[in-house]
Amino acid sequence: MMSEKRLLLLNGPNLNMLGTREPEHYGSHTLAMVEDDCTALATSLGFRIDCLQSNHEGELVTAIQNAIKTHDVIIFNAGAYTHTSIALRDALSLFDGIAIEVHLSNVYARESFRHKSMIAPVVNGVVAGFGAQSYLSAIHAASGLLQQQTKS
Amino acid sequence: MMSEKRLLLLNGPNLNMLGTREPEHYGSHTLAMVEDDCTALATSLGFRIDCLQSNHEGELVTAIQNAIKTHDVIIFNAGAYTHTSIALRDALSLFDGIAIEVHLSNVYARESFRHKSMIAPVVNGVVAGFGAQSYLSAIHAASGLLQQQTKS
Amino acid sequence: MMSEKRLLLLNGPNLNMLGTREPEHYGSHTLAMVEDDCTALATSLGFRIDCLQSNHEGELVTAIQNAIKTHDVIIFNAGAYTHTSIALRDALSLFDGIAIEVHLSNVYARESFRHKSMIAPVVNGVVAGFGAQSYLSAIHAASGLLQQQTKS
Amino acid sequence: MMSEKRLLLLNGPNLNMLGTREPEHYGSHTLAMVEDDCTALATSLGFRIDCLQSNHEGELVTAIQNAIKTHDVIIFNAGAYTHTSIALRDALSLFDGIAIEVHLSNVYARESFRHKSMIAPVVNGVVAGFGAQSYLSAIHAASGLLQQQTKS
Amino acid sequence: MMSEKRLLLLNGPNLNMLGTREPEHYGSHTLAMVEDDCTALATSLGFRIDCLQSNHEGELVTAIQNAIKTHDVIIFNAGAYTHTSIALRDALSLFDGIAIEVHLSNVYARESFRHKSMIAPVVNGVVAGFGAQSYLSAIHAASGLLQQQTKS
Amino acid sequence: MMSEKRLLLLNGPNLNMLGTREPEHYGSHTLAMVEDDCTALATSLGFRIDCLQSNHEGELVTAIQNAIKTHDVIIFNAGAYTHTSIALRDALSLFDGIAIEVHLSNVYARESFRHKSMIAPVVNGVVAGFGAQSYLSAIHAASGLLQQQTKS
Amino acid sequence: MMSEKRLLLLNGPNLNMLGTREPEHYGSHTLAMVEDDCTALATSLGFRIDCLQSNHEGELVTAIQNAIKTHDVIIFNAGAYTHTSIALRDALSLFDGIAIEVHLSNVYARESFRHKSMIAPVVNGVVAGFGAQSYLSAIHAASGLLQQQTKS
Amino acid sequence: MMSEKRLLLLNGPNLNMLGTREPEHYGSHTLAMVEDDCTALATSLGFRIDCLQSNHEGELVTAIQNAIKTHDVIIFNAGAYTHTSIALRDALSLFDGIAIEVHLSNVYARESFRHKSMIAPVVNGVVAGFGAQSYLSAIHAASGLLQQQTKS
Amino acid sequence: MMSEKRLLLLNGPNLNMLGTREPEHYGSHTLAMVEDDCTALATSLGFRIDCLQSNHEGELVTAIQNAIKTHDVIIFNAGAYTHTSIALRDALSLFDGIAIEVHLSNVYARESFRHKSMIAPVVNGVVAGFGAQSYLSAIHAASGLLQQQTKS
Amino acid sequence: MMSEKRLLLLNGPNLNMLGTREPEHYGSHTLAMVEDDCTALATSLGFRIDCLQSNHEGELVTAIQNAIKTHDVIIFNAGAYTHTSIALRDALSLFDGIAIEVHLSNVYARESFRHKSMIAPVVNGVVAGFGAQSYLSAIHAASGLLQQQTKS
Amino acid sequence: MMSEKRLLLLNGPNLNMLGTREPEHYGSHTLAMVEDDCTALATSLGFRIDCLQSNHEGELVTAIQNAIKTHDVIIFNAGAYTHTSIALRDALSLFDGIAIEVHLSNVYARESFRHKSMIAPVVNGVVAGFGAQSYLSAIHAASGLLQQQTKS
Amino acid sequence: MMSEKRLLLLNGPNLNMLGTREPEHYGSHTLAMVEDDCTALATSLGFRIDCLQSNHEGELVTAIQNAIKTHDVIIFNAGAYTHTSIALRDALSLFDGIAIEVHLSNVYARESFRHKSMIAPVVNGVVAGFGAQSYLSAIHAASGLLQQQTKS
Repeated sequence: MMSEKRLLLLNGPNLNMLGTREPEHYGSHTLAMVEDDCTALATSLGFRIDCLQSNHEGELVTAIQNAIKTHDVIIFNAGAYTHTSIALRDALSLFDGIAIEVHLSNVYARESFRHKSMIAPVVNGVVAGFGAQSYLSAIHAASGLLQQQTKS
Repeated sequence: MMSEKRLLLLNGPNLNMLGTREPEHYGSHTLAMVEDDCTALATSLGFRIDCLQSNHEGELVTAIQNAIKTHDVIIFNAGAYTHTSIALRDALSLFDGIAIEVHLSNVYARESFRHKSMIAPVVNGVVAGFGAQSYLSAIHAASGLLQQQTKS
Repeated sequence: MMSEKRLLLLNGPNLNMLGTREPEHYGSHTLAMVEDDCTALATSLGFRIDCLQSNHEGELVTAIQNAIKTHDVIIFNAGAYTHTSIALRDALSLFDGIAIEVHLSNVYARESFRHKSMIAPVVNGVVAGFGAQSYLSAIHAASGLLQQQTKS
Repeated sequence: MMSEKRLLLLNGPNLNMLGTREPEHYGSHTLAMVEDDCTALATSLGFRIDCLQSNHEGELVTAIQNAIKTHDVIIFNAGAYTHTSIALRDALSLFDGIAIEVHLSNVYARESFRHKSMIAPVVNGVVAGFGAQSYLSAIHAASGLLQQQTKS
Repeated sequence: MMSEKRLLLLNGPNLNMLGTREPEHYGSHTLAMVEDDCTALATSLGFRIDCLQSNHEGELVTAIQNAIKTHDVIIFNAGAYTHTSIALRDALSLFDGIAIEVHLSNVYARESFRHKSMIAPVVNGVVAGFGAQSYLSAIHAASGLLQQQTKS
Repeated sequence: MMSEKRLLLLNGPNLNMLGTREPEHYGSHTLAMVEDDCTALATSLGFRIDCLQSNHEGELVTAIQNAIKTHDVIIFNAGAYTHTSIALRDALSLFDGIAIEVHLSNVYARESFRHKSMIAPVVNGVVAGFGAQSYLSAIHAASGLLQQQTKS
Repeated sequence: MMSEKRLLLLNGPNLNMLGTREPEHYGSHTLAMVEDDCTALATSLGFRIDCLQSNHEGELVTAIQNAIKTHDVIIFNAGAYTHTSIALRDALSLFDGIAIEVHLSNVYARESFRHKSMIAPVVNGVVAGFGAQSYLSAIHAASGLLQQQTKS
Repeated sequence: MMSEKRLLLLNGPNLNMLGTREPEHYGSHTLAMVEDDCTALATSLGFRIDCLQSNHEGELVTAIQNAIKTHDVIIFNAGAYTHTSIALRDALSLFDGIAIEVHLSNVYARESFRHKSMIAPVVNGVVAGFGAQSYLSAIHAASGLLQQQTKS
Repeated sequence: MMSEKRLLLLNGPNLNMLGTREPEHYGSHTLAMVEDDCTALATSLGFRIDCLQSNHEGELVTAIQNAIKTHDVIIFNAGAYTHTSIALRDALSLFDGIAIEVHLSNVYARESFRHKSMIAPVVNGVVAGFGAQSYLSAIHAASGLLQQQTKS
Repeated sequence: MMSEKRLLLLNGPNLNMLGTREPEHYGSHTLAMVEDDCTALATSLGFRIDCLQSNHEGELVTAIQNAIKTHDVIIFNAGAYTHTSIALRDALSLFDGIAIEVHLSNVYARESFRHKSMIAPVVNGVVAGFGAQSYLSAIHAASGLLQQQTKS
Repeated sequence: MMSEKRLLLLNGPNLNMLGTREPEHYGSHTLAMVEDDCTALATSLGFRIDCLQSNHEGELVTAIQNAIKTHDVIIFNAGAYTHTSIALRDALSLFDGIAIEVHLSNVYARESFRHKSMIAPVVNGVVAGFGAQSYLSAIHAASGLLQQQTKS
Repeated sequence: MMSEKRLLLLNGPNLNMLGTREPEHYGSHTLAMVEDDCTALATSLGFRIDCLQSNHEGELVTAIQNAIKTHDVIIFNAGAYTHTSIALRDALSLFDGIAIEVHLSNVYARESFRHKSMIAPVVNGVVAGFGAQSYLSAIHAASGLLQQQTKS
């Protein structure tokens, strides 16, 4: 059996507004509800989870830097910074654990500037388009990848 | 409890070679092994699953057209056709069920012509980069989305 | 009076679904109904007509190659392959008869990747945007062009 | 039976020179001959037709504005302005009747700046490449579309 | 008569330096002077005004989020973030009141990277090029728009 | 007190149709009503106003050339010519007075070809997106700029 | 000796303002002075000269169409229309005589949108950058080309 | 002496029409004649040769997949699919033997969309422009490369 | 002899991680060691040095604004913000002293998005590619430039 | 009367082949004949002329550098280097006299890579498309410009 | 039997370093060894061969000009100049014999700036990617093409 | 102590004109003065220095090839060739020593075609914008890098 792993659930700008606006893109769950659902699933899969949201690019950079020493997995919805932030990309490329990029909406079906991710090339994989379910699928994926690493 | 739903696991060109070549991109599982893993998970989540692979764009188009009447979910790894096929996009846009785009490798970390998907704008969501685990996370996502629909 | 001419009505991917989906783009006629209307008009204008639909790019290429020896006119709705297929362009450029590109919808009012046609530069002309009427106008045009050739 | 409809045949810059120059692109009919042919066909299909040609973008804009109240159909060959005029596009988008873009030559087989039409997205459809026959096919299409509207 | 409305005057990076540098682009008024002029005009037009400046993209995002519940109008000079910030765009698109983008200088007459605004598509309108007068015209515009809403 | 200044309110193609079509973009005021509102405001601010509309690029060029000797301010809505006319730009760059570009709709929220203005780099500033109120805010801005010039 | 040839000196938008504004780009000669200098040189070289200026693209198109039957040479400064007008290009391509594009300023040293000429591909040659001397050099060139044609 | 090697001569869409059309691009040899010439040369150099042509992208993909186990060399003229097929590229990248891209015509002297090859980056080399001789030079090259491998 | 000058050594996002990760790009020196080396050299050349690092774009903007009054030289490694920050560019363009852009790695040999610097056009010069030595060379350059200014 | 001026006639790569190949682009005059014609005209206009041709970019750079001290005018046909050479541009920008770019053919009617000139922005003007007459018109232009300078 | 033909083996910049550096791209043969192999094969096929290498673009231009009168075939590896030299293209387009472009490495699998050849459109064909064998295949191709010409 | 190292100071086209023209870009030092300053500094740091300037791309290529055997460091200002020369890039990539690209002016603040360097990706680092001081900083950097190599 896998020893307890630490997972950081990191959310970027405007995700604190989740569930209060534009439900057609983002669903009607608040961020607190999403974090609760994630905590339940992660715990059931043997993770210890920490949740953090910030509107500041610099704080997100720092959060990733801190996670290098303390966490095994980052599930990251970088929001609008996904498409422009080289600083987040550089921070993530310093992280040796499993990093997964998550989006609530299907970004590929929206404005063209949301089709490109600066961070996708430095994470393990991407889950997008399933609303709050995107986070849960990402946690499943992280769990699966860790089990594979343990086996090999 | 959700009544039994039918899921089509559809794989495109060269995915029949899975597990025999280039394990750094695609892992060492053969397609049959992947289909077995998917069947196990899908069944446990209450799906009936059908699996189909083809190197022919036209056959994949026809398969999607056929699924319109018979299936509730398509999990689709269109392989190389992902990036160029408008015909597959048009077929998928006729499908009313849940459609999920899947990739084994993190396509965003490879050649730039693999960064663009012609089909992503007409599916529900995308899962990429977790090897065979991508399919499993997609099945989890499909199950979650169906449960939500049932509730609402 | 013009001797009987042979006309090939060729339809590409997803056009077999005509009339069953997305009526706002394609109208509510089925392909069989469209072919019937075309047969009626073509016959009245002195044509013998053959109808063929395929989802396979390769089959469409072969159909055009075969028509080189047997047909005087090709009315061709290449569907999604319009925008990407150099193979169809190459086949059409081997055809000495009259070739007309047809679209049901006004492709220029849709996604930008539908604005470009790979085959337009090697056909006689293009008719787009009139629903099933597009085929009929194309048959009128073919008839007019043949009469002109007969005169000169 | 359809009550009499009014059709405006509108021609843009340099089309007054038709039949006098570059017959390989435009055929040997003069504009007067083309207008005569169109009048004959339109009358036989129950239209009242008006013909207008101008080299001035502003006059063409005004002609379309005037037609809003007086005509049911505009068959429009905007010539060179096709590819650059947003003013004509804006005028056409104010017109509620049927508008059809026509070209004598196959513009898609000529210089690349002729491949793009500013007005195509706001008309019903496009007919191009059949010489003077393009106008006739467009009149057939307009007639067909009106009959459909009458039925439904 | 219109009940008192609340207006947020929001300024982005480097606008705290206003009046101290590069007067050819920005005029010689300090930010405090501009805010005083705006307060005078806004008060005379029946607004209550709040002023805020920050060099931090994240703080500006938060300021807009807060204004959703408290303010009716945002007059926003996003400075350099105008041209790159998707996060500010996302925040503004959550705001239901009147939002106006303002620039002191005529950004269209400067470097090409200043010609594009990421936020313009989600605001009501734009005023640029009149120095401190830009803010005043924007306040006039907001007042006019509110009166119209009240009437209709 | 400022001596009486002359202001030219210049409107380009299709603006004569104002208030009769597409109210979602342009509001329901006719051009005559807009001109009346502008005259009222301009007069109250000490301007003498002249109004001119034309669908002809050449007439607009000539109007600007004539204004060089007779007017102090041009408030100009170039309509569709905004995005393509170098001739209008060249004429405006000969004008020494205050020139302001105005748009009724928020052009930055519409088709991408409306995002670029050929004339913006040679005017003092731009006001866009406030409907008829755009003209009024521009007149306010012109008045403000003139007062500043008088002071300095 | 060469029989008398007819030369049309055609000037486009804003060239009627020549010599009154922006002497750093266009020199201090008025258009009348330039036309006088051209008349003197052309007469001395055996030409009959006609001079025409218009701000209207449509009038310039018509002028070229008329010149087809009456003139042997067109010396054309299309001004701002140089860079955008396909209509002028189409008109010039109908002209069988010698056509020369002229610019007062070195357009290649100005804004990038002035580097491209729509008409250059359909004229014999281009002279740019020598102020009023550009016209004179073009007349010399036309005279030289005609002498060559006479010889061969 | 080198033991017998197996060589697959693979031809794509429209190459079955060779020698019957457009001899200026492709010469007057039929595909059968080309295959005979290749067989003669290949045999003389110690190869066993198999020949296959298909208009279907999917069949060509499968042919390459099959050759992985059975052949040492693929000489491949992918025709129109050269420029667009990522599926063929992916199949070829699974092949460990020598793969050579061949073209009859000088593709670099034709339309720009023929200048780019999707498969060139995953083959050993390219021979283009020598008509049927291109295949023979490719066989010489394959033979030379194999001899080198044998030596080292 | 030059009076004591103040130098600000400013480092952007992720440079606090220096020496702990990716030594192939950035060398094995920690930021503290780099700052010590710089302090030693700067002191020996007659500078007083201050060192500051931040992951926040807004803090870096403020740091530059503050340095306008207090420092003569800024040696600035903006890290990831180099390539996207117009706010830093605007702040630097307000600074009258000597500003030098520094990079540890040869950014031109890395991903293409690192080839472009938003700040390079507003600094005196750039030093890149020498690891920690880049800072030292920049300090040498600053010293040299100041001596020149003193002389002239 | 103007004192004797020195003129350098400079020709670049492949112009030594003039009159021996491709007369449709370059006419049938040899370079020696062109130089003789130029000498005759230049002498008659009071110039002393020197002629130089080289296939080496470096020699052309050096020739321009040398002309800085010795010549008043450079008439330069840079041939193929026109479109790529920054070194020639840099050399020409050091030259204070009159520099004129000349082309025999109408480069704007040929391949698109010949439409752009690297040197045009740093010369006085351009003459292109008149065969050997281009050089003569350029000499006329140079003479005219010098007379103007003498006057003013 | 074919009379003796003269072949020029022309090598461009840095090919004198062959075999001494970067064997992964260029193999371990020196240029002298390659020339010896080519001489042996060419002689056996009835050619007289001359070999020339230069780092100077101008010398290569001159070498091709000289070959016009003296040689029947040019086998040309233009090295780095392949991708940028219009001067070499112009020289080759003056050559009536057979010209073949050769590359040692598979240029299409290297940096994107090596994918484009300026000279490919004016040669008979291209051979790339087979190391020294590329030259030998090109000689085979030249021999084959000459035999065809002799036959026809 | 480090044994004596040999340094090649290599300058490209137009740098022989240094100090005689355009001092705002390049300063007022002549090349000889720059070489003297470099010699003094290099000698003091234990280098033996050789200086070479050429306007010929081919000579610079050869100079780098020669330096492979004889020099440890190349300080290279390639001038205009920086932005276009693949040949110099190829030569530099054969050099195993330390290579540093130098520019007198801040190339990033000039025309956009000077922003791209073809050689930057194959050198150790770049120093630009400090006038003659750029060379000195580069020599400091080379010395620092060599000391590091000696240590490790």
